[in-house]
Amino acid sequence: MDVNKNYILKIDCSDEKGLIYRIADVVFKYQLNIIKNDEYVDRENGKFFMRAELNGEADLNAFKGTLQAMLPARSNIHVVEARKKDIILMGTKEIHCLGDILLKHDSGDLNANILAIVSNYEDLKGLSDKFNVPFHCVSHEGLNRVEHEAKVLEVLAGYSVDYIVLAKYMRILSSEFVGHYEEKMINIHHSFLPAFIGANPYKQAYERGVKIIGATAHFVNNHLDEGPIIAQDVIHVNHEMSWRDMQKAGRNVEKVVLSNALDLVFEERIFVHDNKTIIF
Amino acid sequence: MDVNKNYILKIDCSDEKGLIYRIADVVFKYQLNIIKNDEYVDRENGKFFMRAELNGEADLNAFKGTLQAMLPARSNIHVVEARKKDIILMGTKEIHCLGDILLKHDSGDLNANILAIVSNYEDLKGLSDKFNVPFHCVSHEGLNRVEHEAKVLEVLAGYSVDYIVLAKYMRILSSEFVGHYEEKMINIHHSFLPAFIGANPYKQAYERGVKIIGATAHFVNNHLDEGPIIAQDVIHVNHEMSWRDMQKAGRNVEKVVLSNALDLVFEERIFVHDNKTIIF
Amino acid sequence: MDVNKNYILKIDCSDEKGLIYRIADVVFKYQLNIIKNDEYVDRENGKFFMRAELNGEADLNAFKGTLQAMLPARSNIHVVEARKKDIILMGTKEIHCLGDILLKHDSGDLNANILAIVSNYEDLKGLSDKFNVPFHCVSHEGLNRVEHEAKVLEVLAGYSVDYIVLAKYMRILSSEFVGHYEEKMINIHHSFLPAFIGANPYKQAYERGVKIIGATAHFVNNHLDEGPIIAQDVIHVNHEMSWRDMQKAGRNVEKVVLSNALDLVFEERIFVHDNKTIIF
Amino acid sequence: MDVNKNYILKIDCSDEKGLIYRIADVVFKYQLNIIKNDEYVDRENGKFFMRAELNGEADLNAFKGTLQAMLPARSNIHVVEARKKDIILMGTKEIHCLGDILLKHDSGDLNANILAIVSNYEDLKGLSDKFNVPFHCVSHEGLNRVEHEAKVLEVLAGYSVDYIVLAKYMRILSSEFVGHYEEKMINIHHSFLPAFIGANPYKQAYERGVKIIGATAHFVNNHLDEGPIIAQDVIHVNHEMSWRDMQKAGRNVEKVVLSNALDLVFEERIFVHDNKTIIF
Repeated sequence: MDVNKNYILKIDCSDEKGLIYRIADVVFKYQLNIIKNDEYVDRENGKFFMRAELNGEADLNAFKGTLQAMLPARSNIHVVEARKKDIILMGTKEIHCLGDILLKHDSGDLNANILAIVSNYEDLKGLSDKFNVPFHCVSHEGLNRVEHEAKVLEVLAGYSVDYIVLAKYMRILSSEFVGHYEEKMINIHHSFLPAFIGANPYKQAYERGVKIIGATAHFVNNHLDEGPIIAQDVIHVNHEMSWRDMQKAGRNVEKVVLSNALDLVFEERIFVHDNKTIIF
Repeated sequence: MDVNKNYILKIDCSDEKGLIYRIADVVFKYQLNIIKNDEYVDRENGKFFMRAELNGEADLNAFKGTLQAMLPARSNIHVVEARKKDIILMGTKEIHCLGDILLKHDSGDLNANILAIVSNYEDLKGLSDKFNVPFHCVSHEGLNRVEHEAKVLEVLAGYSVDYIVLAKYMRILSSEFVGHYEEKMINIHHSFLPAFIGANPYKQAYERGVKIIGATAHFVNNHLDEGPIIAQDVIHVNHEMSWRDMQKAGRNVEKVVLSNALDLVFEERIFVHDNKTIIF
Repeated sequence: MDVNKNYILKIDCSDEKGLIYRIADVVFKYQLNIIKNDEYVDRENGKFFMRAELNGEADLNAFKGTLQAMLPARSNIHVVEARKKDIILMGTKEIHCLGDILLKHDSGDLNANILAIVSNYEDLKGLSDKFNVPFHCVSHEGLNRVEHEAKVLEVLAGYSVDYIVLAKYMRILSSEFVGHYEEKMINIHHSFLPAFIGANPYKQAYERGVKIIGATAHFVNNHLDEGPIIAQDVIHVNHEMSWRDMQKAGRNVEKVVLSNALDLVFEERIFVHDNKTIIF
Repeated sequence: MDVNKNYILKIDCSDEKGLIYRIADVVFKYQLNIIKNDEYVDRENGKFFMRAELNGEADLNAFKGTLQAMLPARSNIHVVEARKKDIILMGTKEIHCLGDILLKHDSGDLNANILAIVSNYEDLKGLSDKFNVPFHCVSHEGLNRVEHEAKVLEVLAGYSVDYIVLAKYMRILSSEFVGHYEEKMINIHHSFLPAFIGANPYKQAYERGVKIIGATAHFVNNHLDEGPIIAQDVIHVNHEMSWRDMQKAGRNVEKVVLSNALDLVFEERIFVHDNKTIIF
């Protein structure tokens, strides 16, 4: 292991000549070493994106300030120490995605600490207990959406989280709720979006007679199932499968797609721009 | 090669006890040998589907009559000699799907005879000539849809075809036109339907920021892009790709999906039921 | 749910004219209904394979006897009531495959009862305890292979099992051991066999510079990594990945391939013939 | 289109602190704009790789000289104008890969000019003629390998080529021959290497009973089927398929994998290091 700290630097700004030179210059002056570096220029929109993994020891505030001075106005500069993220998992009744994340957590394959599980049902308490993760049931029974979300927010407020993972949380969230966690909430949707938006995509897929089904992990925004897509994958299906068969087969895709998306998110590999993701 | 003829038998009817026994009994009595046999029962709708490859020498009319007598009323019995199908290809300007089919035809990998190519532009004449296939340009310029389709139908009427393959034919067809070729017309759509119905799916895919794109081969029915799906496949894409990059990459998927679908169609492996396909 | 029992019938025998007719005749006479039926004729070797799902109520011994009388000598006839299988899981230290199976068991998605977990290390005790499955550690320390396997066999003898699942059990088994469980033991190998037979396939894959890695589930026979293959799948990798990155990414493939293979095995969908599998 | 020229810059050298800064500094001083930039550090071997697409107008020799002075000794610096490559295709009898490349060439999707087709049989003359590409048949009949290769080299010497594409050329090439075209010759192998090295991989795959088959595009080196891998892909197969069925299905994979590999090669996206490829 390196004795020096590791940092992740993310910059997005309007594109100009010499940006890489200017940034590399600052990095060099702060005696930081570039371990890994990716850039992308969106030429259509004149936007520059860069992510670097740095090695060394620096005053991050000073480093950021120097960068800011060298870059175009309104540049976004994000520089942090590489560390495990703190997350909360939200679910409803299904255990395949949640259980997969808990197992990865247990075996050290998850780049995050799971602070708690929040659900609108008691069903997941058993799973939470198995893995010694605090469980909060916030039932929606007898509450309208505003009241229920207020209660959920109250629970979440008790934790300092980097990300909230909707691991088959089957309630629609209001814009207000989502607004608290912009680009901080990841959902797994059980279809290859934009196909089969809305309720029971497996039944829709069965009824349409498609030959592939899939899953989509995305950041949650105000518009249901329309947030920036992080990862997608599919499997082949056939006429012998009922929609329940598709649902069962689809669970393997859902959990793998969510797992891959979380790896990308927790390693800070993603930029969101214009409802799309740039992924390094 | 077998000295005896080979037949393909397809039956679909309402499900009853003893169907396989009754059918196998008739097959046995006609001294036919079952080389390959597939059945599927759609239990939800009480429908029985069977496809068999038979070996032997029989009076097909008598055989069909005997089967009819043993099966439920309104059974569909289809029995034919296995042979190459006669097809017409329709295209507009793009050559990747057409060219792929022509190459397979040349190398003996296509289970069909290509009788002609029909297009609304002259662009494909060069390709048709290379492969010595008759080419008919039926321009739509200055014609309304009814007039144009009448002219196309006139050309098609000059041929006795089993199937018409829309290999990137970029004109919408009217219900009247489609009605002439029910379950006889196969189209390749450049998206994983039902995502991105309509014009320029690659541009739609680019704008939505999906991480997979795909293609769908389907029978053409009255409803644009909503016919029974035969085959689908996808590839992964990323943020670096413009919609033109996606289009270019997608061509490989389009031609392979269409090619796979045509194999299934030409070998009579498909039943269409309730806007879905059962494929053996 | 059906009030009648469900049976699975599997037949393999030398191919003859009229087999389906004769079998369907017997099935019909015993008043059994064929829910699903698949046949395959290996024409090169003159072998007939059939699997049927039957619905009804019959004396299985009498049914089997009648079939035997109608079929060629040395036919294999296997007819059983459809039921959950009894299995034992064997592992070493890794939890991804074991945990995945345990989660599926918990959520009712596994068509089997897990009787116990057997390992040569203590590491998996925690996982076994979480899911309330009996755990047996049979350490190999200070024992030669014969002695160690004798101890494992002793533990296994305490259970009546249908199948043993090697869920990343990292010890090579002797022919003698394997001989006790012919076609009853399923292994997951961490490469797309026959590539990278032997130790540390991910390191081999890394060193060869392949662009895909995969996993293979197979029945275990006397020859290491050479048993009949049940299921395989792959993922794409790139030059940025160390062999440990490949190993981590590969775990998702391993567990899904093993899971899919177990579904096929537990539903009795597989015939083994000539070191290959026929799968319906 | 840009009025300025476009260049591709490729650098590989031993890794040092400040490399990106130094390179970006030179690029900036020459008034070149970085359109796209990728770096990779192989930390295990202390190697730095960088590829950049540059926009501007510069004296390439001077530019290269300045870079050389700033970089570690024994750095490889490759800087060229972006342009279509000149290639020769070699084949034997099969047309699927060759035909696919010719079609792409015709539709403007190939980033190369096809100068000629060379084959050891006359079979491909018809295809070459269709597409107006010069065809050279160099029969191996009655010649030993040295003699035959001398004749092929004679033909090749008549052309100035960037790359030679072995599009199902079914003769083994000697080290001497290969030595003339190091990292300049791309082959398509009909298996997912390193599985099924040697003759008739589809037959080997059939006999092993694998559930996936694939194809591998690689640079040719002295060791048969062991050159640096550029691209691989697979499809699923099943017990119903004979090895000829697998061969037919495999052709779609072969041509797509080769096509994808050629795109990468022609855009100069590949570094070869230590028998592996780094691909940007």
